Parts: sequence; structure tokens; C-alpha cells
Amino acid sequence: MTEKKRTTIILFSGDYDKAMAAYIIANGAAAYDHEVTIFHTFWGLNALRKDEPLELKKGFLEKMFSKMMPRGADKMALSKMNFAGMGPKMIKHVIKKHNAMPLPQLIEMAQEQEIKLVACTMTMDLLGLQQEELLDNIEYAGVAAYLADAQEGNVNLFI
Amino acid sequence: MTEKKRTTIILFSGDYDKAMAAYIIANGAAAYDHEVTIFHTFWGLNALRKDEPLELKKGFLEKMFSKMMPRGADKMALSKMNFAGMGPKMIKHVIKKHNAMPLPQLIEMAQEQEIKLVACTMTMDLLGLQQEELLDNIEYAGVAAYLADAQEGNVNLFI
Amino acid sequence: MTEKKRTTIILFSGDYDKAMAAYIIANGAAAYDHEVTIFHTFWGLNALRKDEPLELKKGFLEKMFSKMMPRGADKMALSKMNFAGMGPKMIKHVIKKHNAMPLPQLIEMAQEQEIKLVACTMTMDLLGLQQEELLDNIEYAGVAAYLADAQEGNVNLFI
Repeated sequence: MTEKKRTTIILFSGDYDKAMAAYIIANGAAAYDHEVTIFHTFWGLNALRKDEPLELKKGFLEKMFSKMMPRGADKMALSKMNFAGMGPKMIKHVIKKHNAMPLPQLIEMAQEQEIKLVACTMTMDLLGLQQEELLDNIEYAGVAAYLADAQEGNVNLFI
Repeated sequence: MTEKKRTTIILFSGDYDKAMAAYIIANGAAAYDHEVTIFHTFWGLNALRKDEPLELKKGFLEKMFSKMMPRGADKMALSKMNFAGMGPKMIKHVIKKHNAMPLPQLIEMAQEQEIKLVACTMTMDLLGLQQEELLDNIEYAGVAAYLADAQEGNVNLFI
Repeated sequence: MTEKKRTTIILFSGDYDKAMAAYIIANGAAAYDHEVTIFHTFWGLNALRKDEPLELKKGFLEKMFSKMMPRGADKMALSKMNFAGMGPKMIKHVIKKHNAMPLPQLIEMAQEQEIKLVACTMTMDLLGLQQEELLDNIEYAGVAAYLADAQEGNVNLFI
């Protein structure tokens, strides 16, 4: 059987803990010689945002989305027990204590391991996100590119 | 290798944005000649509800579920930034502005592309939903039918 | 084609309804001769907690997590319509009425069907959970073990 080892993850969620899970699985799979893609769509795009604010021309609703959505991995909230921001602080504290990696480092590691990080162009349009706002070395594609990767492997997750 | 191209999605979520993602992937996969099934379970069943209220005989709890759950795709809330209904209005506005398709149209398109839409009979029972309340041309089945589809392909998602 | 029938589920969620869905799919797959693994990570670990409180030495943050997280499957909340605990009561009531199985019984059934229940050691560390707090006959492993199972089959879900 010649099926390639391939892991393709759709990261839909904008939660810190879910994005951590996605990147831990992705980094693990890359270490075991899978070809790995993380396709960021909807709120998952926030994990790819740069930290600094940019002055970009945007419509009113797009500006509102930009303001309200977390600017980058480090600003994301927890899916459970967020407690107005206390939860992420607790998680980051235990991550440090146990020598685990916080999300921004997991993303760096993914880029070093040549995991393909894709931003969904259709939802970037909807949420008014522009390429200047996202990290460097990201690919831009749509559902067709996702399917092309996903159908070649069998570890396909929606997170 | 003769593995069929097949995409099988469990739509568990009752969120507008997650259901959009499910139907965008499904319609994309159908366009690329996958056989596609969306298996609606738990809150995902709400995407299949008809808009009009029906007078049906139901027990007390089943009536409460019916009342409290959104009646159809257009009434569903966002998973993030719902803001008491403001979020869905914003999303629908940007969908229109960018000539994207709102959820009810994505579901119509799925039916035109002969995507198999299945309602999970076990959770219909639990939530007190009856066939009269759901869209036409839906199939009714349980976990065995889901597995029969899922094990034939490799793009299997839980949304 | 010699691909094994295999279902591998990551249970990330700590919601009663999502854990129910995971265990219903898993039990169904086992009944159809799949080899089945449920890999519990983050909040999904709570489904494996024993009901009784234990006196264990823990750091401050780990103690807080222990206190705030539900102690076992029966204590978990719904992802939707939780209504401060009313929702789970309603669901458990309709489960009983329709002769369906509540979550703790679904877990017992999974163990009887020899579904492999795995607890993610990395997130146990982060959340300060210890083996004494979890059900008996659980396996303990990390992302490498997950991938070893997942890459052998094609029904791979993240719940």
C-alpha cells in the first residue's frame, strides 16, 4: 500500500487550548515523518495574526472584527474556564512550570519543521483580514487546496 | 489502490459558523467528485429544521427543547462573538457584501449536488424532533450507517 | 486492500453531549469490528475522573484545576443550553425515557468492548491530574502513541 503518511488539520477554533492541541499533534506528526498541513479558517486565523496593530484601510464591519478578535496566538482565550482571562494565565503558568511550549513557540516550531501553514482566503475576506496582518511564510488558499491535501492522507482532523 | 474519494462529515454543532464550514467543505468535495455525506446529530439537527412552527404532539421536555432550539439554519447563533444576535447579523452582512453564500443557500446547493444529508434518528428521539419538522429529502439513519460511509473514505470530520 | 478497520477518536472536549457522541461512535465502531481508541486530552480527561475526592499532594494551580473541573462523566456540563445545570438534567431525563445510555454506562460499555481508553500524559501533567484520580484500566500515553493508532485507520475524529 502506497498511501502517504499525511496529517491535515483544519484549525477553525480561535481558542488557545484547541490551537495548542492542533499544533502539538501537527508537530508530533512532522516528527514522525508525516507531511503536515494546518489549514486556518474562521477564528483559527487569529493564531496567525501579528502582534502589532497595523493601519489598514478597512470597511466598518471589517474594522470591528479586527478590533474584537485576538491579535495573535498569545492573546487567545480558553474554550473552558477562561474566567475573563485568568484561565489563559493559569495555563501559561503551568506550561512554563512543566517545561511545555506555549502556543507562539509551537507555531515557530511548526514553521521550522516545514509544516505547511495555510490561511483560508475565503474567510480572510469575510473577516476583513489582510495578508500584511498575518505571519510571514504563510500560504494562501481555499477549500480546493485543502481537499487536495486531505484526500492524500488519513489523519484528517477538524479542530 | 481503489479507495473511493469520499468525504463524510458529522455535524454535531448547532453554530452558524461551524455549519457554514461543514457545508463549504461538503460542497467543495462534491465539486471534486467525492461522494459526500453530512450526518447531522445533536444540535446539528437544527440546521435541517423547517422555518415554520408546527403543531405536533410532544412531551413537556421535548416541547421545551423544540422551543429553545433554533428553527432552521437562518436562526442559528455564532460559536464566537455572538453578542446576543449581533454577530450573525454582521456575518450575514459580510457574506452578502463579498458575494459568499449564507447557510440556507449552502444547504440548497448541497441538495442540488446530491450530497447525502442524514439526520441521526437516535438524537432526534432524545431531542423530540419529528420528521415533519425537518427539510424534505433527508435520510434517516443511525451510527451504523454513518460508519458504513466513513470507513469507505479518508476525509472524515467531526464538526 | 489491507487497511484495518480502525476508529481513533481524540476526546478534547469536557462537555457531556460531546463525550456522549464520542462514546456512541466508539461503541458502534467496536460493534462493527473496528479496533477503537479514545485518546482523552485536555478537558476530555474529566470523563475519566473518579467520582470520589482524593487527598493528593498538589501545587496551588493544580489544586484549583482539580476543584474547578468536573469530577467524572456524570458531573459534566452541556456544550449548549446548559442553563446552570438544568440542561444536563433534561438530557439525562430524556435519555432515561428513551432507554438510551447515560455517559457513565457508555464508558463502562466501551471498557467491556475492549475499546482502548488512553489518557494523555502531557495534559495530565499540565492540569495536575494523577493516575489515582482516573478510572482503572486506562492506558497512559502521548501524541506518538496517538499517531501510531491514527495512521493505521481512516476514521479519525477530533471531538
